Amino acid sequence: MIKIVLIRHGQSVWNVENRFTGWTDVDLSENGLVEAHHAGTILKKNGYSFDIAFTSVLKRAIRTLWTILQEMDLMWIPVYKSWSLNERHYGALQGLNKAETAAKYGEEQVLLWRRSVDIRPPALDKNDPRYEASSPRYQSLKEEEFPLTENLEDAEARVLKYWDDKIVPALKEGQKVIIAAHGNSIRALIQYLDNVSADGIVNLNIPTGIPLVYELDDDLKPIRHYYLGMGGEVTEEILPNEQQKEK
Amino acid sequence: MIKIVLIRHGQSVWNVENRFTGWTDVDLSENGLVEAHHAGTILKKNGYSFDIAFTSVLKRAIRTLWTILQEMDLMWIPVYKSWSLNERHYGALQGLNKAETAAKYGEEQVLLWRRSVDIRPPALDKNDPRYEASSPRYQSLKEEEFPLTENLEDAEARVLKYWDDKIVPALKEGQKVIIAAHGNSIRALIQYLDNVSADGIVNLNIPTGIPLVYELDDDLKPIRHYYLGMGGEVTEEILPNEQQKEK
Repeated sequence: MIKIVLIRHGQSVWNVENRFTGWTDVDLSENGLVEAHHAGTILKKNGYSFDIAFTSVLKRAIRTLWTILQEMDLMWIPVYKSWSLNERHYGALQGLNKAETAAKYGEEQVLLWRRSVDIRPPALDKNDPRYEASSPRYQSLKEEEFPLTENLEDAEARVLKYWDDKIVPALKEGQKVIIAAHGNSIRALIQYLDNVSADGIVNLNIPTGIPLVYELDDDLKPIRHYYLGMGGEVTEEILPNEQQKEK
Repeated sequence: MIKIVLIRHGQSVWNVENRFTGWTDVDLSENGLVEAHHAGTILKKNGYSFDIAFTSVLKRAIRTLWTILQEMDLMWIPVYKSWSLNERHYGALQGLNKAETAAKYGEEQVLLWRRSVDIRPPALDKNDPRYEASSPRYQSLKEEEFPLTENLEDAEARVLKYWDDKIVPALKEGQKVIIAAHGNSIRALIQYLDNVSADGIVNLNIPTGIPLVYELDDDLKPIRHYYLGMGGEVTEEILPNEQQKEK
């Protein structure tokens, strides 16, 4: 039986400020850093260990991972960072306050942008300073690959390609894997692994900084999944239909 | 012109306790962490950037690197960790207090172990708990490759193999490289790059936490080298013959 641990980064400073983040490289809040330490402690206490780690190129996920590895005395394991695991690109909404955006465009429109599988937020203009295609961080992307905006399906496509190309081979080799990523990159994996419906996945809320364990069979089909709490065991099942909406 | 930055990890807790460390995985001291932050600030202030980083599998070097990358807003760059960049293995001396060891074996003997190119400290026994050949951290080494002790030449052999196999290709691709490592793994590189004599190299002291810049020509032959200080420029040339002995 294969166990893989997924973790959404701890609270970020823009989670606190209620702003659309996407690919903006904001750091963890103080609380987010505490969450990351806590996650590492929980994993260690429950006897987890890892051979290899995957994360995005955004510091809120990297810092969450580094903090966990530090707590687990696993700073030496290989860490692979890829834009493929980044949060969904939020286009021209990146940086805007969610409440102000709702006041401007209406609650319904914002909910469509946030909760549709196939509707994209307004695209960035290529002259916008938020368009980072020429940043060294994204040098591995061709210019036409750098997103101006993404819907959940767009994000899923790149996450699942990375899953197939990089993560599955590690699992097949018997390596113990942790993935530190973002709300929507983890949603993408869950939708794929558990074959969740479009309705189910957009309403699935992933808590920040809580290790989510997937037990997989040899064909990488999920057996069960659960969050890991200080109690040492399962704290909460993911049941998409019962999820509370994201605040 | 190619610039490469070498940095010896900040002060470790065993530097403070005056103990032989080698492959023992001790952390930075508080002062060592301050040194690492300082190094990152200096590099950033002087306009340095990096595309790729190399370090050992020991946390005092990894934490130094992570802290530098954090200060430089470069947490996203690829980091490669290898035992090949570890400190010289100090055999059965690992963990012993340097003063006590000198009292027991005599100053002269200890100086031979510390300052010879070709004399090895007493070897570890394979039943010794300090023999970590079966640790997951060293799974990439065959059992016969895991050292029981090393002299400087042994350490140099593995460092230079790694240089040729991994670091040179990155430099040839035009990548900007930082190497966060240890006193003797950096000595090995300096001896190779600058063709330093055996006498010179054993007396060359590398300060902790100070970026050492090597400027290389297209054939990777050194043009000049210098330490980087807060003043923004060269603070000290390395001149092996003028080096003070390690305390």
